[in-house]
Amino acid sequence: MACCGNSVCRRCCCRGGDTQTPEELTILGEFRDEDEILPRKDYESLDYDRCINESYAEVLEGMDNRKAKKYEAVRWMMVFAIGVTVGLVGLFVDFFVRLFTKIKFTLVGDSIENCSDKGCLPLSLVELLAFNMTFVFIASVLILIEPAATGSGIPEIKSYLNGVKIPGIVRLRTFLCKATGVLFSVAGGLFVGKEGPMIHSGAIVGAGLPQFQSITFKRIKFDFPYFRSDRDKRDFVSAGAAAGVAAAFGAPIGGTLFSLEEGSSFWNQGLTWKVLFCSMSATFTLNFFRSGIDFNKWGCLQLPGLLNFGEFKCPDGDETCHLWTAVDLAFFVLMGAVGGLLGALFNCMNKCLSKYRIRHIHPKDKLIRVLESLLVAMVTTVVIFAASILLGECHDLPPPKSQNTTLSGSEDINSTIRQFFCPNKTYNDMATLFFNPQEAAIHQLLHQDGTFSPMTLSVFFVLYFLLACWTYGVSVPSGLFVPSLLCGAAFGRLVANILKVKLGMDIYSGTFALIGAAAFLGGVVRMTISLTVILIESTNEITYGLPIMITLMVAKWTGDFFNKGIYDIHIQLRGVPLLEWETEVEMDKLTASDIMEPNLTYLYPHTRVQSLVSILRTTIYHAFPVVTENRQNEREFVKGNILVSNNIRFKKSSVMSRAGEQRRRCQSMKSYPSSELRNVCDEQNAVVEPAEEGEDLLQPMLERRHAPYPNLYPDQSPSEEWTMEERFRPLTFHGLILRSQLVNLLIRGVCYAENQSSATQPRLSYSEMTEDYPRFPDIHDLDLTLLNPRMIVDVTPYMNPCPYIVSPNTRISQVFNLFRTMGLRHLPVVNAVGEIVGIITRHNLTHEFLAAKLRQHYITF
Amino acid sequence: MACCGNSVCRRCCCRGGDTQTPEELTILGEFRDEDEILPRKDYESLDYDRCINESYAEVLEGMDNRKAKKYEAVRWMMVFAIGVTVGLVGLFVDFFVRLFTKIKFTLVGDSIENCSDKGCLPLSLVELLAFNMTFVFIASVLILIEPAATGSGIPEIKSYLNGVKIPGIVRLRTFLCKATGVLFSVAGGLFVGKEGPMIHSGAIVGAGLPQFQSITFKRIKFDFPYFRSDRDKRDFVSAGAAAGVAAAFGAPIGGTLFSLEEGSSFWNQGLTWKVLFCSMSATFTLNFFRSGIDFNKWGCLQLPGLLNFGEFKCPDGDETCHLWTAVDLAFFVLMGAVGGLLGALFNCMNKCLSKYRIRHIHPKDKLIRVLESLLVAMVTTVVIFAASILLGECHDLPPPKSQNTTLSGSEDINSTIRQFFCPNKTYNDMATLFFNPQEAAIHQLLHQDGTFSPMTLSVFFVLYFLLACWTYGVSVPSGLFVPSLLCGAAFGRLVANILKVKLGMDIYSGTFALIGAAAFLGGVVRMTISLTVILIESTNEITYGLPIMITLMVAKWTGDFFNKGIYDIHIQLRGVPLLEWETEVEMDKLTASDIMEPNLTYLYPHTRVQSLVSILRTTIYHAFPVVTENRQNEREFVKGNILVSNNIRFKKSSVMSRAGEQRRRCQSMKSYPSSELRNVCDEQNAVVEPAEEGEDLLQPMLERRHAPYPNLYPDQSPSEEWTMEERFRPLTFHGLILRSQLVNLLIRGVCYAENQSSATQPRLSYSEMTEDYPRFPDIHDLDLTLLNPRMIVDVTPYMNPCPYIVSPNTRISQVFNLFRTMGLRHLPVVNAVGEIVGIITRHNLTHEFLAAKLRQHYITF
Repeated sequence: MACCGNSVCRRCCCRGGDTQTPEELTILGEFRDEDEILPRKDYESLDYDRCINESYAEVLEGMDNRKAKKYEAVRWMMVFAIGVTVGLVGLFVDFFVRLFTKIKFTLVGDSIENCSDKGCLPLSLVELLAFNMTFVFIASVLILIEPAATGSGIPEIKSYLNGVKIPGIVRLRTFLCKATGVLFSVAGGLFVGKEGPMIHSGAIVGAGLPQFQSITFKRIKFDFPYFRSDRDKRDFVSAGAAAGVAAAFGAPIGGTLFSLEEGSSFWNQGLTWKVLFCSMSATFTLNFFRSGIDFNKWGCLQLPGLLNFGEFKCPDGDETCHLWTAVDLAFFVLMGAVGGLLGALFNCMNKCLSKYRIRHIHPKDKLIRVLESLLVAMVTTVVIFAASILLGECHDLPPPKSQNTTLSGSEDINSTIRQFFCPNKTYNDMATLFFNPQEAAIHQLLHQDGTFSPMTLSVFFVLYFLLACWTYGVSVPSGLFVPSLLCGAAFGRLVANILKVKLGMDIYSGTFALIGAAAFLGGVVRMTISLTVILIESTNEITYGLPIMITLMVAKWTGDFFNKGIYDIHIQLRGVPLLEWETEVEMDKLTASDIMEPNLTYLYPHTRVQSLVSILRTTIYHAFPVVTENRQNEREFVKGNILVSNNIRFKKSSVMSRAGEQRRRCQSMKSYPSSELRNVCDEQNAVVEPAEEGEDLLQPMLERRHAPYPNLYPDQSPSEEWTMEERFRPLTFHGLILRSQLVNLLIRGVCYAENQSSATQPRLSYSEMTEDYPRFPDIHDLDLTLLNPRMIVDVTPYMNPCPYIVSPNTRISQVFNLFRTMGLRHLPVVNAVGEIVGIITRHNLTHEFLAAKLRQHYITF
Repeated sequence: MACCGNSVCRRCCCRGGDTQTPEELTILGEFRDEDEILPRKDYESLDYDRCINESYAEVLEGMDNRKAKKYEAVRWMMVFAIGVTVGLVGLFVDFFVRLFTKIKFTLVGDSIENCSDKGCLPLSLVELLAFNMTFVFIASVLILIEPAATGSGIPEIKSYLNGVKIPGIVRLRTFLCKATGVLFSVAGGLFVGKEGPMIHSGAIVGAGLPQFQSITFKRIKFDFPYFRSDRDKRDFVSAGAAAGVAAAFGAPIGGTLFSLEEGSSFWNQGLTWKVLFCSMSATFTLNFFRSGIDFNKWGCLQLPGLLNFGEFKCPDGDETCHLWTAVDLAFFVLMGAVGGLLGALFNCMNKCLSKYRIRHIHPKDKLIRVLESLLVAMVTTVVIFAASILLGECHDLPPPKSQNTTLSGSEDINSTIRQFFCPNKTYNDMATLFFNPQEAAIHQLLHQDGTFSPMTLSVFFVLYFLLACWTYGVSVPSGLFVPSLLCGAAFGRLVANILKVKLGMDIYSGTFALIGAAAFLGGVVRMTISLTVILIESTNEITYGLPIMITLMVAKWTGDFFNKGIYDIHIQLRGVPLLEWETEVEMDKLTASDIMEPNLTYLYPHTRVQSLVSILRTTIYHAFPVVTENRQNEREFVKGNILVSNNIRFKKSSVMSRAGEQRRRCQSMKSYPSSELRNVCDEQNAVVEPAEEGEDLLQPMLERRHAPYPNLYPDQSPSEEWTMEERFRPLTFHGLILRSQLVNLLIRGVCYAENQSSATQPRLSYSEMTEDYPRFPDIHDLDLTLLNPRMIVDVTPYMNPCPYIVSPNTRISQVFNLFRTMGLRHLPVVNAVGEIVGIITRHNLTHEFLAAKLRQHYITF
């Protein structure tokens, strides 16, 4: 924290790292910040695209509309079950957080009131410390059990919905640790929220429930192979996450939008309905039980959500009062800008801190993390205690309000006022904010007519800002939503105080506090449509739509000028290859052939077991193109007929010559479209040798080297010993097969003997192929002695025969759109005569990779 | 109307036409209803996909991030301008509708009150008739000027956003006629709403404003070529339509969802922001002016929208009152089901009526349509007058309410009570509903504590139902939203009356009226997420979310059991080839090769002017594949090498043999993926002749016959005189060029002489290519004498070199997803060796076409 508070560090992480793009840095001759984290290559993509191979086609043949409707009905039931479960989880978390917090504050409050007279305040502090540190200790021990449960979980869910498999984040153990841990971290007085973890829990419920299996409980097995795919799982995770948002904020529409925004690349109406239904179910379940348990009015469902901002309204009869006017909008824009700046500062400090943690805390013993959590808890406790005593001001109690708002979801506003350390008939404004659950403090700032002095608000804001920043990233389940709202509300109320008291303007303080909250939250998380809708739903006041939206937009734009949103920063810190919404316009200067991975390992339709094992053991690729040799074309090529192929070989280290080549291609294209001279293999061989050193610093980082595998069993698959001519012969593309599918085939002994027809090969059904989902066996688990290396495997019934493909000249925006929208994992690049020239995966489309390629492109020109 | 009221007709159009799918009908040996309207082939698709050809690549080369940001800023400004304009349009419509209605009801009301005593009621009737018929006459004369302005416009906008160009719907003249006409049709007392036309107007503003040109005003010209594409236009139309919804309902989020749901196939965050911003601008503008003009409180923006349902709340101090409980939900589900049934009945009757109109009224003189409008107006007027006198009941006036709700957007609820024909201190409940603007009547039903007798409500519902059904489709601008809501509110209030008075249940009538309105509206329009959100936003009560959503879902499901939503029915009646959300699971039994259009007209990269002209004049295709002959392959084929091509020729009339062939293909695929025996041309030639008659009734309808063009200038393009071998040689696919682009090239003289290099051909810039957008010149406008027929055109710089392609074996769901999501217009089907075998357009993906193909598939097996 100390490291990050100063302006030097701010400069380092806001200016140096973020406003200058990597390509600028390198072009200017500067070296990149060593800490800059590039997307890691070891994350797998989800397979959202359906692979309709022959075994799936069999399933399709047996499918009629009646069956399809049955599956659809099961899907709806699943979605309903997810919603109900998420609602119950929300109820559980909310109930226990309230219970623990209430016990803590009642006991400590009593103690303080007794001790104020007797002078035994240190005893009260110790009592509070004991509570908080015990709770936080439990929370961080739970994290030791399952480290994936740390933090808010939103970055992980966002990555998952974006299409990246992150190990462990949708496991049952993570769910248990998260849902239990967040009770204790919130009750432990840390400046964390329970919303993020609730969304994560919802997503896990969505992922797990329709599978009817888990690592922990292996007994339950549900014979329904249609949910055994990444596609279905991701859809259910969308629904679960939406239900989580709905439960956490009482915002079913906001939740739906959140999921759609993060998750579904194309607007699928069926999915949208299901997600909305799931959100509504969660809200409904939660409200049903809350109406009974909290208000003893079973069946009265029109409660506000767990996070609600109370009712904004002018006092009855006050004609001149208005919640906001057109003039206020100008202030809202300013507040949005300031909120964006503050959010950027918050993010920047948190980024420094997180990097520090990654470098210095995570490698050490896990106990260090528990100690850090305890330290944070201790400092937080001491700070709120000391600030309340030393910096709080005493004000007259506001008159008790006559009307009691039943079912408003919150107690009377005056019941949460704290009179600690103050004489009778007055209250301590600092203690009122600190010695309450955060939701109650937000309500105070939004609705308390009584005064909070500007001094108190400023101190509160600064302390809260720093402590919340320090806390986010500590090893406990911790959301960021409510702390940001509280922090921002204090800022907004401060602005309102200044305008109202100092400038004598006629404004409604609550609106300003709300806008402040929105501005700061917007500055920190930079969420978009969904956030707007969530906040509107939480205020239950449509007329706040315009100011909230304008504030959030200004906050986002201001913040984006400096750095990314906090969730994106944490995604980046984990090295997740996240795909943005769209590519920059400039990227369209690149084509598919510029960014594809040209070094592929191929399979033939009929391959010997020994070759398969050799390929699988010596490469790390997750998919293999199935090809046939186009020897005919090759012979033509050798004969000098140039009208063979539009194949553009990606030549490493020969980038400088690419420009000329491209121009030549353009020229020849004009005279005859496919009159592309295919690169002579020997020529390529020649230029591979003299690698131009020093020129390309990023090159090794960006290109995964072609890992040639040792030629264990010399067979028909390409090997080291082959001549270059043999190696680079034209290969007609026929389909794509996944590593998991190949291992499955080997394990289940799908092969035929050399002297038999391929029809004798046993057939695997679709359900046999997907049985092991989501954890397919590894090739190294395979017992080689059980395999006959001379047998032949016919992969064609199991490959994906028609993946989407692009031509090498396709512009990046088109490639990106196709890839992102269809949720692809591998996108083969196939030239005009059907030869595969490369494959594009998620890693080839990350912003960092594209930017580096664009830089190369500029250097070339 | 008489024709449709009876149950026979209901059976005809609900059972016969809709629940049995066409393939079932034909399989069962029944003939299709002759009236069944198949998607027409003469609608063009929009080009949402970007065509990045060489001339666009030049633009890209000049593009840097600064320039891109500038364009983005212009885009935002445009969106803001659209929002403001749409807000102003909404203000204009609302203001004048209110004004006209007020004048009418004040004068007629005074007359009635005078005449009740004097006994001159017929005079009042004549007065009302005069008003209504004059207004309706003006409205229908405006429709005579521009027939595209008829109706609500939502079917047209939905089609446009779906990707179909419908002539005339986004023209300035349509806008003027629509926006003015709707004033008069609403003020004329017809049972129509102004919301649909406002949405249509918004869409036109979106389409027209960023173009800065119109047919009417040709002077303004704005040199900004980047909005000259279908892609940009459709995005702006999305924004405009959303702004229209936002202005009409005060529902900016609902409007955004409406546009996204209908319009954007993939979730584009940038677009979503812009659409939301546009909606918010419209709401803001409208509220700003309304706050000043209507309430004289300039700058007080937190008004409810134009359509608002008032504030639902329990009387102060009533502890036992609740808006709804869990028990009520059961009734809501039932009401949803009944609403769905009523909606289905409404749609079915309206469908019959519309078909009748299409067959018997539209072909006749246009004046007939005006007379029909006048007839409707007359009947409506007489009915409401007679019903109020004869069927209205007199009830005691409710006590005047003390609190006056300022800024509630509606006058005091009691101010719209009508005492016509009733003794003092009582009011006429029927007249209260009929002699008010529809919005006021809805308010009465939702909030009036006074009684409406069940008899009155039933009569009102039936009359309104029938008249609204008759009215929708008459030649005036007419929305359907508010009439449906009013009709449904009467139904809901009726249910509430029965439950409360007859069964003595403790319920809140207003909620039931609201749910009734939602149920009936949901049953009629079957809109989805967006409707839910629009209604929630209109009630300004998040807690109604769950019941509204459940009701709408039940209503939609119930209604969908019988027929489609009213908008979809009208889309179908126009024969628009709309693409659904997704294909049915069963359709995946088909592959791309089953549905593609195999008879193509090709271009070579370098083509003589004479050939181009000949091709363009003798075909109606909008796109031409640019191909080169793969003679080498062909020779191989002739030599007997079968490993050439995976090309599956689509053989008309030889469908019966397809199954065996497919099985053979599967078998051969297993042994070697591309060992597909290409169909011998002669064999194909032979089987084309004996067309199996009688077997395929739909075949001629579904397949556009290959129209061979007369061989005007024998050239290198395929002609009639060629041998079959020449005709069916393998053609390597290189790109796609549009008809409009070719005509443009010819008109601008882009060609080179035979003895020169193609480099001498003049280059057209991107802006020159798009200058004429959206109305490109026709080939028949071309002056042939200006062209030298021997010159050669090199089309390669102008074609789209990398369209998305699919392989012939791709399953329909994948093809459909790609096509719909990417907003394609032509999707080439290319086999494994790069040869084009067919093209898929929107027409090949409509439900009707796919269903017919699936039927063929079943027959084959």
